[in-house]
Amino acid sequence: MVSGKIDIHAHLIPPEWPDLKSRFGYGGFLRMEHYAPGRARMVRDDGSVFREVGENAWNPERVLEDMERYGITTMVLSTVPVLFSYWARPEDCYEWSQFLNDHLAQVVALYPGRFWGFGTVPLQDTDYAIRELERCIRELHFPGVEIGSNVNGKNLDDPSLFPFYEAAQELGAALFVHPWEMLGRERLQRYFLEWLVGMPAETALAICSFIFGGVFERFPHLRVLFAHGGGSFPFTLGRIAKGYQARPDLCNVNEVAPPQAYVGRFWVDSITHDVRALRFLLETVGPERVVYGTDYPFPLGDFGDSSVISQLELPEEIAERIFVRNALEFLGLQTTEPVAPSLQ
Amino acid sequence: MVSGKIDIHAHLIPPEWPDLKSRFGYGGFLRMEHYAPGRARMVRDDGSVFREVGENAWNPERVLEDMERYGITTMVLSTVPVLFSYWARPEDCYEWSQFLNDHLAQVVALYPGRFWGFGTVPLQDTDYAIRELERCIRELHFPGVEIGSNVNGKNLDDPSLFPFYEAAQELGAALFVHPWEMLGRERLQRYFLEWLVGMPAETALAICSFIFGGVFERFPHLRVLFAHGGGSFPFTLGRIAKGYQARPDLCNVNEVAPPQAYVGRFWVDSITHDVRALRFLLETVGPERVVYGTDYPFPLGDFGDSSVISQLELPEEIAERIFVRNALEFLGLQTTEPVAPSLQ
Repeated sequence: MVSGKIDIHAHLIPPEWPDLKSRFGYGGFLRMEHYAPGRARMVRDDGSVFREVGENAWNPERVLEDMERYGITTMVLSTVPVLFSYWARPEDCYEWSQFLNDHLAQVVALYPGRFWGFGTVPLQDTDYAIRELERCIRELHFPGVEIGSNVNGKNLDDPSLFPFYEAAQELGAALFVHPWEMLGRERLQRYFLEWLVGMPAETALAICSFIFGGVFERFPHLRVLFAHGGGSFPFTLGRIAKGYQARPDLCNVNEVAPPQAYVGRFWVDSITHDVRALRFLLETVGPERVVYGTDYPFPLGDFGDSSVISQLELPEEIAERIFVRNALEFLGLQTTEPVAPSLQ
Repeated sequence: MVSGKIDIHAHLIPPEWPDLKSRFGYGGFLRMEHYAPGRARMVRDDGSVFREVGENAWNPERVLEDMERYGITTMVLSTVPVLFSYWARPEDCYEWSQFLNDHLAQVVALYPGRFWGFGTVPLQDTDYAIRELERCIRELHFPGVEIGSNVNGKNLDDPSLFPFYEAAQELGAALFVHPWEMLGRERLQRYFLEWLVGMPAETALAICSFIFGGVFERFPHLRVLFAHGGGSFPFTLGRIAKGYQARPDLCNVNEVAPPQAYVGRFWVDSITHDVRALRFLLETVGPERVVYGTDYPFPLGDFGDSSVISQLELPEEIAERIFVRNALEFLGLQTTEPVAPSLQ
């Protein structure tokens, strides 16, 4: 029996924060509007609602109750991508990232062993991003940071990001890549399609950018995890590999190996919402590269009674890998001896 | 033994065509530049090359040799999406579509039983599109037409297309939906990603537009096939279904059934480039909804010795379905049993 579960993909936001528009002198940020007990809206400048959230989005006590219910020992908390604010002035985003990271560090400190943190960094400015990354790892003792799948439309193969990857590799910081600002979102405005079609494509694009942009080649020790089971990448890997084979003039400008060679080089979370897709994912990237994740506490989350992974009859050893060991390896927390999180 | 194969996804273009820029008085069209025996370039106004093509792109005799080699009995030929020209003036695109369709009809007539045709229509103008659709079916005796996955950025749930779908349903015309003008293509300019990431996303978007836009509900007898194994749709169906369940306020504005209910309602071709993905596809949409296709003659095509489907050991009955019967049913050439599973 696996006695504990580490959830690599879970979000927490501060219950409130300063009025960023008046602080920084320009708009575009979100604010929290608590309108009823345990209910709040994340509101844009123009008053439109980005998202309704409940107490489980900001209250760790409430989160712990759910963790108890779902048998989750430890959550690795990260902010929600809409708060990245890569579009803001770098120095402002730097300050804002510090605010978010300090909040997360407080939560982690209050509940030792129950929460770990992925920081956020002002990725639009590599120097600031590295500075905050160093603080996240060295001072706040986060195992890594969460980054968006693009930086104001620049894909993750942009050379401006290479010094950041180098710093992450040297610091041993794990990178959790989360889709946001989805490609083609002007065509995805109806039916929640930005989340349902855009996010899987955005994540496939992020993985392909790492592969074809030579990021994996340049930073061989960088540890990276892509959200939502790698998006549409695992299922379209055959097409991507065929593209590399058929059009090396286009795909292989950076002298990289065939795409299949990078499978096993990165982690993905387990969020597929389908037993057959999860099995396909395990077969494609290998059971040692899939990490349990829930996307808690959001509507597209995979937790609770309907959790897909609980419907898969996994051999004990593979379950232990997915629920515990793979997370520890990705996070760089298991170098010599095995650690069961429930034993702390 | 399956004695023949119908290839539902194969492209043929005319060897040459009039100078459309001087004919219509504005640019944006492609022209053919034959620069060596059996070699040509499809060239844009500015002289840049869209694609190099060989004789197998325009010479049916050459195509027949390959069909012999690959055991393909019949190819259902369609034009290449870059020639759709939905962006042109409707009356010009109408004339151009007639040119392309007349060419295809000639090829079909020259080699009876070896080639069938999917016409193209000026989809930017519903009236013209219906007029040419009627001509394709009634006069040119095509079993259907090929349409793009969007019309100048409008998704396929756009109500302006409903009269066209209605006409197709009434005429019994099969619709072959091919991805083109990929969403987010400004972010897919490197590494062939427009084809490798954009196309699968574009096709998933097309299927979701049919589902959530209520197109399947409105036109229960319309027969539709989506290219490239349905793109990323089959693998992300769990996520899409979860979205419908979690956010009906966003997904279900048109009072449709859950997405899973429409699986079985449409066809896909077999082009996945991966044995495991093809098996997953067959399990997801069912062996009666997968139609053999090659994307001949292009570099991302799945034909010849490396053909993925030939690596799958299919039971005789399923092979016969995929190679022959499913195509006939989709094309409406075998009409004894009901095609649309009852959804209502």
